[in-house]
Amino acid sequence: MTTIVERLSSSLGHDLVLTGTAIVEDDAHDESLTAAWHAPDVVVVPESAAQVADVVRIARELRAPLTARGSGTGLCGACVPRRGGILLSFRRMSSILEIDTENQVAVVQPGVTLQQLDEETARHGLIYPVFPGESSASLGGNVATNAGGMRAIKYGVTRNQVLGLQAVLGTGEVIRTGGKFVKATTGYDLTQLIIGSEGTLAIVTEAILKLYPRTPHAATIMAPFRTLQEVTAAVPKIVSSGLAPMIVEYIDQMTMRAITAASGLDLGVPDTIEEAAQAYLVLVLEELDRTRLDENVERMGSLINDLGSLDVYVLPPHAASSLIQARERAFFTAKAAGANEIIDTVVPRAQIPAFLSRVFEIAMQTQSPIFGCGHVGDGNVHLSVFQPDPEKLHDTLSSVFEAGVAMGGAISGEHGIGTEKRSYFLELEDPAKLALMRRIKAAFDPDGILNPGVLLDPDGAVAGRN
Amino acid sequence: MTTIVERLSSSLGHDLVLTGTAIVEDDAHDESLTAAWHAPDVVVVPESAAQVADVVRIARELRAPLTARGSGTGLCGACVPRRGGILLSFRRMSSILEIDTENQVAVVQPGVTLQQLDEETARHGLIYPVFPGESSASLGGNVATNAGGMRAIKYGVTRNQVLGLQAVLGTGEVIRTGGKFVKATTGYDLTQLIIGSEGTLAIVTEAILKLYPRTPHAATIMAPFRTLQEVTAAVPKIVSSGLAPMIVEYIDQMTMRAITAASGLDLGVPDTIEEAAQAYLVLVLEELDRTRLDENVERMGSLINDLGSLDVYVLPPHAASSLIQARERAFFTAKAAGANEIIDTVVPRAQIPAFLSRVFEIAMQTQSPIFGCGHVGDGNVHLSVFQPDPEKLHDTLSSVFEAGVAMGGAISGEHGIGTEKRSYFLELEDPAKLALMRRIKAAFDPDGILNPGVLLDPDGAVAGRN
Repeated sequence: MTTIVERLSSSLGHDLVLTGTAIVEDDAHDESLTAAWHAPDVVVVPESAAQVADVVRIARELRAPLTARGSGTGLCGACVPRRGGILLSFRRMSSILEIDTENQVAVVQPGVTLQQLDEETARHGLIYPVFPGESSASLGGNVATNAGGMRAIKYGVTRNQVLGLQAVLGTGEVIRTGGKFVKATTGYDLTQLIIGSEGTLAIVTEAILKLYPRTPHAATIMAPFRTLQEVTAAVPKIVSSGLAPMIVEYIDQMTMRAITAASGLDLGVPDTIEEAAQAYLVLVLEELDRTRLDENVERMGSLINDLGSLDVYVLPPHAASSLIQARERAFFTAKAAGANEIIDTVVPRAQIPAFLSRVFEIAMQTQSPIFGCGHVGDGNVHLSVFQPDPEKLHDTLSSVFEAGVAMGGAISGEHGIGTEKRSYFLELEDPAKLALMRRIKAAFDPDGILNPGVLLDPDGAVAGRN
Repeated sequence: MTTIVERLSSSLGHDLVLTGTAIVEDDAHDESLTAAWHAPDVVVVPESAAQVADVVRIARELRAPLTARGSGTGLCGACVPRRGGILLSFRRMSSILEIDTENQVAVVQPGVTLQQLDEETARHGLIYPVFPGESSASLGGNVATNAGGMRAIKYGVTRNQVLGLQAVLGTGEVIRTGGKFVKATTGYDLTQLIIGSEGTLAIVTEAILKLYPRTPHAATIMAPFRTLQEVTAAVPKIVSSGLAPMIVEYIDQMTMRAITAASGLDLGVPDTIEEAAQAYLVLVLEELDRTRLDENVERMGSLINDLGSLDVYVLPPHAASSLIQARERAFFTAKAAGANEIIDTVVPRAQIPAFLSRVFEIAMQTQSPIFGCGHVGDGNVHLSVFQPDPEKLHDTLSSVFEAGVAMGGAISGEHGIGTEKRSYFLELEDPAKLALMRRIKAAFDPDGILNPGVLLDPDGAVAGRN
């Protein structure tokens, strides 16, 4: 370790290389419920891509594992440092380099937070439409995990917004991919390959992001349904209505009670309906002008009514924003309630009813209470699993993931694999694809120094490390 | 060659392996203006992914180059067979396997044409929104080149519509990527990597495509401007208007004259305006209902007027569709007029005025007339270059591509690199990225049998071929 610290200090200067008591507790963990905390041995806080490249070259030479970290709001352990490795924190690379209104793009450093970017784009009447529910999250982390969130049904996820990157490969080479243009067929799409690779292929040092005009008017509709099946069965019809909702969420009864209680929110639903409602649908519509919005709300309301809802509420602005915020905090509400794991399996939208039926069978069989809410318009359900016994928890998750994959889905819609879902991923994925992914990994990172132990590597070891 | 034919015939049966006079002329070329025709030595017409895998394994064993082909409407030589190689034609794999209305996806074989898919989706009130201007193009070819077209400004390109693939790697392994879901963070995005790889990484045998509700009402606006600079300068404001146009094209004076003459179209523009108009802006708006459409047309019309147009025409339906069709045929009009090359450089939207200024300087310097039209909303300009001398043509193209790349763009927005733009690509691309792409290529296709000579390989040779 001494050698690593010396080499880093002599290259970057002592100020940018932290050890011992200079390391803050926050750098030891992400928000995952299961990943073990581990204080990093050394933290570097680079100020430029050239410095990141220096760090990569030193790590490569010394075969030291290198983990990049943004705000640490991830949910699968992907930015928790490896033992004996280097943690690279982007807290000093957190500038919005440019808001280019003519091309409708932002150019940001990886440490920029969603909150910071939202405040800046708002000044220009523009918006970066990815809202994964945690506005302190960094853009670098969002790129690494292909962050999603509630508005993905209309705008897509991070993958759909990133037009270009600057990134450092595991070789230490700095490349630029894509650009301020929306399409190209000029070689392999390296931008898309790096997005969602959880820090295992390259370290992102800059991103070009697509911005959109900020739509001025929005309305929130909440509809209680007798059963969860009715909610999920309604979704394909809502999506194909042409009314282009910005948010299509479901919240089950238990979760709704928990999040409204946690935020002291009274939505004004009569007791009789609240008792009968096993699940809620929450929709947000947006429009350029108020009249059209009102018309759309009217149309959507009658569609939902036809689909069997117990009632339809158009929430007043304050209640609406409180509900959306409470929904965004659902993860922390579940965590506070003692959930042992929170997962986000994605399945084809129309398979949600069958998937949730199977989930509840598994919950009964394994005696693990499972509650949820989620981006039902995207087929992405977020489930809180209550099962304190680690072995039983593993079996429960295994069965849920297996069911999702068997229905044509994937383990994670937006949280990622990290260290915490790796064993399930390696078990359920086609071995031919895993072998291909390992070859791709080697193409970017020949010595396996970038985030070993995340996603693919079975034992966290760096190749040839001694 | 005899060995190859024998091995293929014994594996697939004689009916699916064509040689000599059984090979049709169409299989010898694509629509590129410069690629040399070459009749294939052997054509295989597989009926299943398993048969494609057999062909790949035989090609690998015999180190024979393997080129996949859809409808052959490509523009850069990427599906022209290599000498001594195998041409794989998807004419017998042309079924729409499923229109899943609940999940709003289509599952297609690679030989399905856009026309065929459009007719089928229309029956369900849905649409596949990629219209690259040639409806006989196949979906397999569209995936290989990441096809774009006029509606990309609203819906995105092929890359944005493909949710999953079945594909055969250069190893002969058959994999499935993605699925009927809109997002995932579960391993590297192999779907996105294969899209646009021009048959060099894998052979696509099935694709899952995103469908959209078909919007019932549309209107076409045409606005003549005094200068091309005024048109291109107007574009960022139109894109950021929030009116979400489906098409934003520009057509220069020469091209407008050529395409209207070729299609016998009279748009009713008075002579005085036609003479003053150096360029036209063509917009299509669409909406759920007629009233909103009319309002949007009104708003857009006054915006365009404020931006300095000579006039604003809302075209009657027949003229509108004729103009869009004529624009779609612009490539063939230019070809008939004797253009020596047609290119489709992409630059950041706001850089189009500067880029086109530079293009006209190059045209003057090299005495090569250059006219154009294009997806100006996407920054993707299509230029017809008239220069019969091959060396001068090369220098002209080289200068244009260099200018585009220097302004933050890329050589091709949607046509691809193929064999015909490869030398420019290899010259202008960062060597570190080229080396990375070659390593990625090797991860998919260790022996280099998939479309050698396209995109990367400098001499078209298959590794270890004797």
